[in-house]
Amino acid sequence: MEKVRGDQLYEGKAKIVYATANPEHYLVYYKDDATAFNGVKKGIISGKGELNNRISAHFFELLERRGIQTHFVELVSPREMLVRKVTILPIEVVVRNIAAGSLAKRLGLAEGTTLKQPVLEYYYKDDDLGDPLINEYHIRALDLATDADLAILAEQALKINAILSEYLATRRLKLVDFKLEFGRTTQGEVILADEISPDTCRFWDSDTQEKLDKDRFRRDLGGVEEAYQEIWRRLTGGAE
Amino acid sequence: MEKVRGDQLYEGKAKIVYATANPEHYLVYYKDDATAFNGVKKGIISGKGELNNRISAHFFELLERRGIQTHFVELVSPREMLVRKVTILPIEVVVRNIAAGSLAKRLGLAEGTTLKQPVLEYYYKDDDLGDPLINEYHIRALDLATDADLAILAEQALKINAILSEYLATRRLKLVDFKLEFGRTTQGEVILADEISPDTCRFWDSDTQEKLDKDRFRRDLGGVEEAYQEIWRRLTGGAE
Repeated sequence: MEKVRGDQLYEGKAKIVYATANPEHYLVYYKDDATAFNGVKKGIISGKGELNNRISAHFFELLERRGIQTHFVELVSPREMLVRKVTILPIEVVVRNIAAGSLAKRLGLAEGTTLKQPVLEYYYKDDDLGDPLINEYHIRALDLATDADLAILAEQALKINAILSEYLATRRLKLVDFKLEFGRTTQGEVILADEISPDTCRFWDSDTQEKLDKDRFRRDLGGVEEAYQEIWRRLTGGAE
Repeated sequence: MEKVRGDQLYEGKAKIVYATANPEHYLVYYKDDATAFNGVKKGIISGKGELNNRISAHFFELLERRGIQTHFVELVSPREMLVRKVTILPIEVVVRNIAAGSLAKRLGLAEGTTLKQPVLEYYYKDDDLGDPLINEYHIRALDLATDADLAILAEQALKINAILSEYLATRRLKLVDFKLEFGRTTQGEVILADEISPDTCRFWDSDTQEKLDKDRFRRDLGGVEEAYQEIWRRLTGGAE
């Protein structure tokens, strides 16, 4: 019963969240809709919803096995997963290993420059403001999170980066950068939420540096659907 | 002899730095030139160089008395001060007490909103990049400063904020925000450098909230020269 969609609670750019009969669980539906540049560019990536649902579940299960608490409960259908009910913190946590996108622009680094150490960034989740880069002082001034929350975000994000980077290397993929969102459970714990997919990560082929993520959509590179499929194939094809 | 200008070492937007006969000292000349918006807006604020030289000296002397090491040695002429030779760190340190300017825009706060606690920000000094906001991870990735340097910058900036805010309140002035630059001496110490003036601080009248700083130039509010003069008058007129 609890795996049946209840009221729609929230519709985002790529997902819809529904209540379920279990007050501790939500159902997340993954759409094919794609947006970029804060919603300015819109499109459809055929089959994306299904792939991102599966890919996210795959990463959440991997992380759970490695001791990271996530909101993931189980896959329900090709496009739906059951998750723990959380209140999303209004902070996007970004980890970067290689300069690309906004970091390359911000710091004047050539795209592809390997960073001396992982870079952690916080962005204020606010479409009207364009999700601005913020620091810990801004977060305190706006009361977006406590210092204890921030310590968890930083520690978990860097740990997740280490786990995913190592895992993806065995799939001949470089984890260039990725965005995480965290949520607070009804018990007050802060755990990993949202999704982990080619929508929220930059994946490059380890050998060819080919982009296998949403940058193919953002930059009109073609082969968008194929890139998402290729990620799924690498994850499930086993290590080389 | 050492107070005589030697070779010109650097010309910035508002100051020129000269060598002196003493290898440990530079001579700083304060210009009337004013720029805003990363050099897009240019103008002259008549008498600014003289006022900013005196105002900066006044603040540096106050801070030295309160235990803050600065590059200031002595006033040499109406527009010139002798300073210790330092290598400026490529980081602008900004402290904010009240939302204004880019912070108000970035966070969507009404200008004038008092922040719950002082906000500290780092900007990468790079005109071509537009002096972007950066965080500690960017600073490490770019090797702009060591973690030990950063600890000094944060501690000194917040201490300077407390000293100046308290002092200015006795002059019926609010210290809204300000930008500091630090430099490394030939002995390796990191000390306060650059200037502290209406070019680098936002000062508001405590009672009327009237702007008494470079925002009058940036925003074409008129009464620019008078504002700089008023700051000097308040600093030297004694406490009320």
